[in-house]
Amino acid sequence: MHPFSERLRAKIVERRTPTLVGLDPRAESLPEGLLPWAEAASWAQRAEAFGKFCRGVIDVVAPLVPAIKPQAAFFEQLGPAGMAVLAEVIEYGQKNGLLVILDAKRNDIGSTAAAYAEGMLGRESAWRADAMTVSPYLGVDSLQPFVDVAVERKAGVFVLVKTSNPGGVMLQDLQCDGGMVHEHVARHVERLAAETKSECGYGAIGAVVGATYPDQLAELRERMARAWFLVPGFGSQGGTARDVAGAFDSRGLGAVVNNSRGIIFAHRREPYASRFGSARWQEAVEAATLDMIEQLRADTPAGRLDKS
Amino acid sequence: MHPFSERLRAKIVERRTPTLVGLDPRAESLPEGLLPWAEAASWAQRAEAFGKFCRGVIDVVAPLVPAIKPQAAFFEQLGPAGMAVLAEVIEYGQKNGLLVILDAKRNDIGSTAAAYAEGMLGRESAWRADAMTVSPYLGVDSLQPFVDVAVERKAGVFVLVKTSNPGGVMLQDLQCDGGMVHEHVARHVERLAAETKSECGYGAIGAVVGATYPDQLAELRERMARAWFLVPGFGSQGGTARDVAGAFDSRGLGAVVNNSRGIIFAHRREPYASRFGSARWQEAVEAATLDMIEQLRADTPAGRLDKS
Repeated sequence: MHPFSERLRAKIVERRTPTLVGLDPRAESLPEGLLPWAEAASWAQRAEAFGKFCRGVIDVVAPLVPAIKPQAAFFEQLGPAGMAVLAEVIEYGQKNGLLVILDAKRNDIGSTAAAYAEGMLGRESAWRADAMTVSPYLGVDSLQPFVDVAVERKAGVFVLVKTSNPGGVMLQDLQCDGGMVHEHVARHVERLAAETKSECGYGAIGAVVGATYPDQLAELRERMARAWFLVPGFGSQGGTARDVAGAFDSRGLGAVVNNSRGIIFAHRREPYASRFGSARWQEAVEAATLDMIEQLRADTPAGRLDKS
Repeated sequence: MHPFSERLRAKIVERRTPTLVGLDPRAESLPEGLLPWAEAASWAQRAEAFGKFCRGVIDVVAPLVPAIKPQAAFFEQLGPAGMAVLAEVIEYGQKNGLLVILDAKRNDIGSTAAAYAEGMLGRESAWRADAMTVSPYLGVDSLQPFVDVAVERKAGVFVLVKTSNPGGVMLQDLQCDGGMVHEHVARHVERLAAETKSECGYGAIGAVVGATYPDQLAELRERMARAWFLVPGFGSQGGTARDVAGAFDSRGLGAVVNNSRGIIFAHRREPYASRFGSARWQEAVEAATLDMIEQLRADTPAGRLDKS
C-alpha cells in the first residue's frame, strides 16, 4: 500500500476534483421513507437508516469524488449500534474506491492517544479509516502517537489548525509571542508533514483549515507547504469556491474541500428540492456534487487537475 | 435529581475523600487469568475481560470513593463491542452508588458538539455518564452545546485547561495578550461555572488541571473559584498529595484527584505486588485506594472533610 498522501493525490487526479463529501447523517433530515416516524425510532432503527442512507450517498458519489468524511459524533450518538454502522459505512466506502477520512477530533496523551489512533486507523481495528482528524490542545506529545500509527499504517492525520466556526477565534487567534496560537500549531504541523513527506511533496500529517477565513487560508498554505489541507466550511457554512482558492498549490493539489449537508441533504434545499424532492434524493446528491465539482473547477486552481 | 455539582459534593462528603479512580483497562496489564493469551484474544474477548475487570474494580472501590473515570479510548480501541462494555461499566458503577465521569475529550462545533453531548450524557443515550471531559481548541461556541446538555440533564462537563503531560506546555503555556493560553480558557470556564453555580458554590462546568504543575494549580484555583477541578497526574505521572493541595478550597472541597494505573494495576507494583500478587489483585486495588485516601487526608485540605 502507498502512503496516504500518495493515495490521496492519485485519487484526486483520477477523479479530477478535490471534492470531499461529508457524511453527517441526522434522523430529522433523512429523505422521507428512509426513517418513518423518526421521533419514535429506536437507536437501532436509526443506526440502520443511517447505514442505508450513507451507502446510498456512497453509491452516487463514489465515481465522482476522491474521498468521504464520516462524522463520528452522529454515529456515536446512537451508541454501540451506531459505531457498528460507522464501521460498515467506512468499509463500504473503501470497497467502492473511496478514501475515508474519519472526522473524530480525538486527542489524549501517551498510550491513551495511541489507543485512539489504533482504534480508528489500526489494521485490526473496527474502523480502519484511511485518515482521521485530531485536536492539538494537549500539545506536541499528544500528536506523536497519532503520527506514529499513521506512518506505520500508511494512514493520514489532519490536525485542527484553524477551524471554520466563529467562536474558534477566541482561542486560535490569540496573539502570542511568535504569532497567533493557530500559527504555532501550523508550524508544528508543517514540521510533522515535512518529516513524513512522500513523492507528491505532501506528508502524512495535514491540517484542518476552514473555508470561512480566505485570507488566513492563503497565508497558512504558505506556512504549511508540505501539509494536505482538509477545508471545512464550504456551502452551508458560507464558504465559496473563491474563498477556498488559496488552499491549493499551483498544480491544483494540496487540499480537499468538504461539503456535508449541502450535498447529502441537497433534496431539502433549492434548487434541488423542487427539481428532485425527497423521492429522488440520490439525484439531488448527484446534482449537488457535480455543481460543487464545477464550482471548484471554475474558481480554484483545481481546474488545472484536468491537465495533470 | 440534583445538579452534578451538588451530587459530587454530597458524595465526596459522604465518602470523606476526593479520590477518583480512573478505569484505563489495558489487555497487557490485566491480572493473570482474566485474559489468558492476551495477544491472541479477539476484540470481543478483550471487551468481555475489560468488563469483568472494571466490575471487579468497582466492587472494591464503590464503598470507598465518590466517583470513577472510565477512559473512552481503551474501550473504543476494541470497536463497538468495547463501546457496549463501556456502557455496561458506567451503569454498573452508577448502580453501585458511584458518579461516573467519562473521559472522552470530545469536541466539535454546533449540532455536532450537541450530538457528542447527547451521546455521552443524554438521558436516552447508550452511555449516560454523569459528566464528561471536553477539549477547548474549537473555542467558545464549541463548548456551549456541552454546557446546554449538561444543564438540561443535570450533568457535568470538565474542560481541559492545563493538562498533566509535559508537551501540553507548547500550546497551553504560550504567552498571549492577556495571559497564557490556558489562562484564557480558565477565564471562560470560570464564567460558565459561575453561570451554572449551585448551592455548594460550584457550577456544572469544571476544569481539568494537572497535578504535575503545583504552582499553576494553586493559581488556577484562585482564578476559577466556581469550577470543580478534575486533577490527573497523581501517582504514575509523578504528582503527590502535596502537589495537589492547592486544588482544594478551605473546606477540602473543589477537586477530585484521579489515579488510574496506580490503583487498578496496583498488583503490578510495589509494595502491593509482593503483598498480594496477581491472584489477590482486588486486595491490591483496595490497599492502594486506602493509601491514596490516607495521603490526601494527611497532606491536603481534604483532611477537613472529616469535620463537614
